[in-house]
Parts: sequence; C-alpha cells; structure tokens
Amino acid sequence: MIGIYLDNLRKNGALIHNITNYVTVNDVANVLLACGASPVMADEPEDAKEITAICGGLNINIGTLNTNTIEGMFVACEKAQELKHIMVLDPVGAGASKLRTNTARDLMKKFKFDVVKGNVSEIKVLASGEGGAKGVDADINDKITKDNLVKAIEFIKNYAKKINTIVAITGEIDLVSDGNSCYVITNGRKEMGKVTGTGCQLSALIAAFLVANPDKKLEATVAAVCTMGVAGEIGWSNMECGDGNATYRDRIIDAIYNMDGNRLDRGAIYEIK
Amino acid sequence: MIGIYLDNLRKNGALIHNITNYVTVNDVANVLLACGASPVMADEPEDAKEITAICGGLNINIGTLNTNTIEGMFVACEKAQELKHIMVLDPVGAGASKLRTNTARDLMKKFKFDVVKGNVSEIKVLASGEGGAKGVDADINDKITKDNLVKAIEFIKNYAKKINTIVAITGEIDLVSDGNSCYVITNGRKEMGKVTGTGCQLSALIAAFLVANPDKKLEATVAAVCTMGVAGEIGWSNMECGDGNATYRDRIIDAIYNMDGNRLDRGAIYEIK
Amino acid sequence: MIGIYLDNLRKNGALIHNITNYVTVNDVANVLLACGASPVMADEPEDAKEITAICGGLNINIGTLNTNTIEGMFVACEKAQELKHIMVLDPVGAGASKLRTNTARDLMKKFKFDVVKGNVSEIKVLASGEGGAKGVDADINDKITKDNLVKAIEFIKNYAKKINTIVAITGEIDLVSDGNSCYVITNGRKEMGKVTGTGCQLSALIAAFLVANPDKKLEATVAAVCTMGVAGEIGWSNMECGDGNATYRDRIIDAIYNMDGNRLDRGAIYEIK
Repeated sequence: MIGIYLDNLRKNGALIHNITNYVTVNDVANVLLACGASPVMADEPEDAKEITAICGGLNINIGTLNTNTIEGMFVACEKAQELKHIMVLDPVGAGASKLRTNTARDLMKKFKFDVVKGNVSEIKVLASGEGGAKGVDADINDKITKDNLVKAIEFIKNYAKKINTIVAITGEIDLVSDGNSCYVITNGRKEMGKVTGTGCQLSALIAAFLVANPDKKLEATVAAVCTMGVAGEIGWSNMECGDGNATYRDRIIDAIYNMDGNRLDRGAIYEIK
Repeated sequence: MIGIYLDNLRKNGALIHNITNYVTVNDVANVLLACGASPVMADEPEDAKEITAICGGLNINIGTLNTNTIEGMFVACEKAQELKHIMVLDPVGAGASKLRTNTARDLMKKFKFDVVKGNVSEIKVLASGEGGAKGVDADINDKITKDNLVKAIEFIKNYAKKINTIVAITGEIDLVSDGNSCYVITNGRKEMGKVTGTGCQLSALIAAFLVANPDKKLEATVAAVCTMGVAGEIGWSNMECGDGNATYRDRIIDAIYNMDGNRLDRGAIYEIK
Repeated sequence: MIGIYLDNLRKNGALIHNITNYVTVNDVANVLLACGASPVMADEPEDAKEITAICGGLNINIGTLNTNTIEGMFVACEKAQELKHIMVLDPVGAGASKLRTNTARDLMKKFKFDVVKGNVSEIKVLASGEGGAKGVDADINDKITKDNLVKAIEFIKNYAKKINTIVAITGEIDLVSDGNSCYVITNGRKEMGKVTGTGCQLSALIAAFLVANPDKKLEATVAAVCTMGVAGEIGWSNMECGDGNATYRDRIIDAIYNMDGNRLDRGAIYEIK
C-alpha cells in the first residue's frame, strides 16, 4: 500500500528547488502544486545556492542546460548534499550529446543522488558509457517489454547496487530498484508520450515524495511513479471528443490534484521482483 | 466603479515589455492578450533597451533572474524611465536569497517604479531589510487577516508614502495603497495559490492597466487586482468534476478574456480605508 | 490535395531541433508531438551542434534571443547546412530591434534556409532594410487584404525568387511562395492572434512537414500553414461558453492531434496565383 506516501506529502508539504529545462518548467511547477508540494526555480549559481538551502529537495533536470545553469547545478548540488537534502537527477538526453552525457556523469561522480530517473537509453548510457538516445525518447531497440523484462530487471538491480542509488527507468513498463528489489510498474498510457514533459514532471514528483517520506525512499519513489501513471489513466478517461495532447496535459495534472492515497492505492499496479 | 479602466484597456490597448521568469512567461503573455494588451519579451541587454523603447510599459519580475537578465532589467529600466513609461516591479522571492533581495532593492534605489507588487513577505523584506520568504509564497506568520488588517494597512500606507510609489500586497486579502488611501480587496479564491504564476500574471495586468489609464494609476492598479480576483472566482465557478489546478489556470485566463468593465464592476469587492 | 503531406509526416515522423523563445516553447513541443513529429531543444552552442546532428530539421526562432543562444543558432545552422538538414527561420520581431534584425539578416546571409516565415512587417524588414515592427505583430499598415493582395503577391514572389528560398507571410491571409507560384491561403481565425505562439508553432510545423516531405517543400509548407489554419477553425468550433484564449490555445493543438490528411484536405482553402 503506497497511498500513504501521497497522503504524507499532502500533510507535510515539500519545497522543491528545480533546476530544469525551460520547455516543461511550467508543468513541473503546476504538478508540484497539484501533489501538495511547492516549487522554486533558480539557476544562477549565486541564487541557486541560497534557494536550495531553504528547500527540502533538489530536482536536477539537464534538458536545455547551458554553461551557466550547469554551474548552477553543481553549486546547488554541493549545498544540497552538505545539508543532506533529497537529490534527484533526470539526465534528459544523456547519450544525445557529449555535454549532456558528461554533465550527468560528472554530477553523479561528484554527488550522491537519492534517485536517478531516466528512460532506458539514458540510463544505459550512464551505466555503460555506450548507446545513443534519439532525442529525449527511448531508443526503440532499448524498449522494455515482457520479453526482455528479466534482463532489464537484472540490469537495473546491478546498476542501482553499483551506484548505491535508487534507479527509475520509465517507459511503457516502469522499473524502480534500489539494488535489492525491483518494482515493476505497469500504470500509465502510451499516449502520455505525446505530451511533452511527463517525464520531467515525474522527476519533480519523486523529489517531493521523498522529501515527505525520507525514511521510505524506495517506496516513495514507487508511489511517485504510480501517481504519474494512475494520473495518466484517470486523465485519459476524462478525455472527450475533440480533445488531444494539449488537453491531456492538463487532465494528467488535474488528476494528480484530485488524487488521494486511497485512489492511488486502488489504481497502482506493480509487482516486486 | 473601476470597470472603466478595463474598458479603456480594451479600447486603447497596451504594449508591455516583460522581463520575467521562464516558469510562468507563457501565462503572462496569454493573460496580456486576454485583457486587450500585447506582450513582448526581451532580456538580452542590447535587445531589451530597444524593445522597451517601442512599448508603453515595462514589467520587471525577478523570478529566475540571472547575471545577464539582471543587466537587461537595469538597461530596460533606464530606457523606460527616460521615456516616462509605466514601470512595475514584482520582487519574486525577495528575502529568499541575497541576489533577489539585492536586485529588487538596487532596482528600487535607482529607478522610480509606478507600482511595486509582492506578497507580504517580499514587501516586508523590501521595507525593512528583515524577514524571510519561504519560496515565493508568503510566510504564514505574515499573512494578512482580519485580525491584523489595521496594522497591515498602516504598514502599507507608510511604506507607499515613504517610497512615493503605489504598493500592492497580495494574499487572501489584497491591499493597494499610494500612501494616502488603502484599498482592501477581498476578491479571489485560495485555490489560486495552487496555480503557478497568478502573481506574475497580475503584475503584467497592472502594467497594462496603467498604460491604458496613466492618469488614474491607483485606481487602475486596483482594477487590475480586482480583475485577477474576479477571474479567479469566475474561473472556479466554471470548474467541472475532475478539473484541477491545470484546468483552473486556463479558466482564470479565459475569464479575463471574456470580462468587460460591467462584469468587473459587478464582481469587484473592495473598501477604501 | 495537400493532406498527403500530413499523412506522410505521421507515417515517417520527424525529429526537429528547435532553438526558440522561452515564451512559447512548451506549445512548440506539444504541437510537434501533435502532428506526429518529435521535439528536441538545445541552445548552448556545444550542445546545439550535436543535437542538430541527430535531428532531421532545424527550426530557428529569434524571439528572446541572447548572446549565447545566438551563438547556438549559428553553430546549429552550420552543422545543419553541412548535413543538408531542413532549415526554417522565424525572424520574430525583426524590425523591432537592431539585434533581432541583424541576427535574422546575418543568419540569412550565412545560411541557406529552406523556408523563412514571418508576418508581413518582419518579412518586409528583411527584404528592404526598412519598416518597423510593433512588437511581434504585423504593423497594421502592412496588413495584407484583398485590396493590396496583388501587390503583396508580387512582393513575396520577387523576394522569394531573389533569395531563392520559400517565403511564408502569415496574417489573416497567408501567402507562401517559392518565387514562381504563390499560394494564397485563407484558413484560420482572427482570434488566433489572441493566443501567444501560434506563429512559433507554425514554424515548427513547417520544419516537420518538410522533413517528412523533402521533395515537395513548397507544397509541404502550404500543408503546414493550412494545418495550423484549419486547426484554428476546428479549435474555435469546439469552444464552449466561458472559454477564452487559454482554452483556445489547447483546442488548436488538440485539433492538430486529431487531424489526418483527409480532414486537412476537406478544410484547406487556398488558391495558386
């Protein structure tokens, strides 16, 4: 039963500092408000350091990074680590360019994140130093299906254990592992891939869930992933004739706004492997 | 009767240059279009100066500021002041970091804004050099309620008089003062706090209302604040089962799009103290 | 019959690298997803070069440009040209500031775009070195109407021929010319001007349509323009009581999400002159 982690978040709140891409930043802010958390954004290094200090969690997303915001990421991570804040990394586009790959790797070398969340291409790049990412979507060859699920679970467990960090791989099947167990989550709808930023929103949710549930990081990560997936299902069920991906975007966030732990528990579909 | 100020805005139009944060900038653009104004955004110093020159008003919002955009703010303010344009400052997060606090203070030292609009924490920080801001939301201890209203009115009047600038403090109760009188506005809904950027939108609206009503700056500011609040009420009344904060965001802007002076007058709730 | 170009896009896909303004970037991403393409955004020069390399098309939009993103534009264009990628330029605000005017001109001097798309003020500025732009909207004096249509067609044909590039001028009447023929398109609704970013979305659509139809660039550009206009009409027909420009924004993108070639063919209204 993971609904309790959402209820805790609504009860406790969570102030999340996001250094994230400018494409989906508005949705990230609204999804945090939807789940009971509060967003702050600051990427200028001097500002990022102080803003991080007053928050409970730091969400780093490397989409649309630039020289200045990269510096902001490092400064914020340093302060967050010093203060033992929750730290989440979303390595958007790792593998698609050296700058993104290296930034993600350098951040992970220097700092201990609580959760690293990406699609299978991005995580494979971080794990192996190989592979390629087609834009920010997972390489089709890298798709996790029922057929390669056993191998994928083995991969994520090994990698999570190696880096001693919770790893979340998202796609049609989502995997979350701390190196010991692996949650296999089958919530969500494929149409979510037609809405920009659902992945970015999830990273922010993970940070919020962990800040509100610091002693149950693995379960809180799973709860965040399920929240996004269940919201995708509820949001889709609320679509009407003529609605498309722009309306769907709002309906997903709306569904989170209206969700409580009980609803999450009824909708969440996962197995522990 | 403040509806006339909205009607004037729709009749006269207003081209507003916004140097604002990238979190809510799209909503700022759409809310300006909704009220009959037009938006332009430019923050590179060289560009900001010229863009300001062709506009009627300048809206400075210091959320997600960086070294380059700060320079853009100063350059734009200098040009706007030279041309006697309407100038509005939204000191987002003043008190949350030195960079934000100092930027807001330095801008106010160097330039004469027509309106400074913030939550009570931000305005207190500017007024006193003390206090703290929790992210971009008002410190709970600083909330303006019926119980501390008399003191709050005294505070805003004194501060507005001291800086010879219209000051707007937003929250569940909104205050607008020019140092002589204080408007106490009780429009709006608490759920607006769950939509990112309603405050940023308001600052842009204030700039637009003042450009279209340059001889009635205090009343135009009040009209802008009431427009936002009434839109929040209308928007909420249009919410349906399953709707949440993402849809509410659109419904608020939609309500402004459909509002005229008559509707504003019927909805506006304020007292002059 | 231009519907085939939309069907091709849905069948073939198109990965579009966008260096675009932060005001409307989210809508640009969602409209690309709506039409069957995929978006990537990267503006840091080092990153932009590599990201462009993995894409099929490059969409350059100079709204909210800064020194760093301008460099990113040049680096990306150089790589895109080397790889013979589709290149589209949207000179937002050319004429409104020297930086914008010069950036657009310099880009066009150095690189061969497939399509340049702007409002009539912007295109006139590029063509003549004169004129002025009021914000990002077309100067009223420059509006293309039935009365000045013959002159406007002559202008666009001459300019397209001179620069050997497809030129699209958008407004209530849209013109698309390759220098030989000129398509006169009358889809769309004037209320689209109350939604920020429909122009930016169109540039991205053009890039996507051309990537999927590289041998029919003129017709694909026309198809993109008609898609946007027809979506504006469908979206408006789906508006309900109380809806305004924020909801309209979503309904336009939704309409594209639900459109196929057949629907486009039934809605497209154009003449070839």
